Amino acid sequence: MRQFYLPELTKENTRFTLPIEESKHISRVLRMKNGDEIQLLNGKGLVAVAAITDNNPKATEVDILRFEEFPLPAEEIHIAIAPTKNNDRIEYFLEKATEIGVTKVSLLLTDNAERNKVKLDRFEKIFVSAMKQSKRVHLPILEDLVKTKDFINAHPNGLIAHCYEDTKTNIFTSFKAQSCPIIIGPEGDFSEQELALAKEKGYTPITLGENRLRTETAGLYAVTVARLWLDMNS
Amino acid sequence: MRQFYLPELTKENTRFTLPIEESKHISRVLRMKNGDEIQLLNGKGLVAVAAITDNNPKATEVDILRFEEFPLPAEEIHIAIAPTKNNDRIEYFLEKATEIGVTKVSLLLTDNAERNKVKLDRFEKIFVSAMKQSKRVHLPILEDLVKTKDFINAHPNGLIAHCYEDTKTNIFTSFKAQSCPIIIGPEGDFSEQELALAKEKGYTPITLGENRLRTETAGLYAVTVARLWLDMNS
Repeated sequence: MRQFYLPELTKENTRFTLPIEESKHISRVLRMKNGDEIQLLNGKGLVAVAAITDNNPKATEVDILRFEEFPLPAEEIHIAIAPTKNNDRIEYFLEKATEIGVTKVSLLLTDNAERNKVKLDRFEKIFVSAMKQSKRVHLPILEDLVKTKDFINAHPNGLIAHCYEDTKTNIFTSFKAQSCPIIIGPEGDFSEQELALAKEKGYTPITLGENRLRTETAGLYAVTVARLWLDMNS
Repeated sequence: MRQFYLPELTKENTRFTLPIEESKHISRVLRMKNGDEIQLLNGKGLVAVAAITDNNPKATEVDILRFEEFPLPAEEIHIAIAPTKNNDRIEYFLEKATEIGVTKVSLLLTDNAERNKVKLDRFEKIFVSAMKQSKRVHLPILEDLVKTKDFINAHPNGLIAHCYEDTKTNIFTSFKAQSCPIIIGPEGDFSEQELALAKEKGYTPITLGENRLRTETAGLYAVTVARLWLDMNS
């Protein structure tokens, strides 16, 4: 069944008007008719099957037939990552991380930042598309650019992937299912000040294998191992 | 130090002429001079530091100063994957898989093939670039399109990722360091015949988590978990 993202979907209403973009897609591209059924997702675990009652290409109306609700899992995979200089690379990360199961992405403004502006609405769209593609019902949370220092102070006791010489533990053995953000450095790595603060705030340096990974590859590696850890421990 | 891929590098010679593309890059883009040092890789574990003796933009000549040799690890990460309809997606997989540590990629011509032609020379270039980027010294082996049936017959007893209802084991618990190819289905999945043959030939169905993954994401997931397994068991 065709899926549509409708953030305003709640159990309190059973009749909805879809936004113009979705309405146009339903009537003009998919050529759906009144009575056809679609699935609506609010990205927060609420899923509804709805029947089209008016396939108006500007404002399609639907009636909800049934709701299904999926509680938010207690487990988190929270990645804080610096946007890459090449925007395609961070976008690819966002898509793949969503498919694999990231639950929150914070964008880091690091001392060696390659990019200090991002298109959040575009990133949100990637999340929505990958959520539907991978049949997830919870949209990952996206947090706008935040200084590394502020992030670390707000989220102590995580894991940090950096390239300095250091005693590092394997990410699989260090990961925890809650309150365990994983921070990934930019192409130019974290500054010594950022690393020192992270350690002071209880961050554990981790290794992601022997090869030197690009920022977005390191992020994907971390999401995958965290996902595996959750699959094997819950 | 700048790295250059030179497949013909052997320990039997100490003087080499670089191809025109590399030569042009050295003299015109990098503006390197005679006496400057570069690193040469043959992609098979042989690394040389060389000094430029003639920065001719058509045929740069170098003298080898020293060789270093890295034996090929016994561990393998062999992924057989169907090329995606969207070529960018399989190319992205090849780049990331190389960074993370894949040792061999076989391209599968499946019953539900989305693509029955690939540009091998382009794929090779991606391998070379990602090998240098990630500081690997062994180039992954790339195997041209091969029918699923022929691949399975030639490489029995691997792991298979498919989307049919089935008893599946976790990839981490099933992976082995040798002779354990992981085959990844195309967007339309393997055919029932392909799956039946794989099982007959000793393939174990594996799960890559609960979400539905795109072909290239499944491939990346598999490479990452295999890499993690090797890091933790060797």
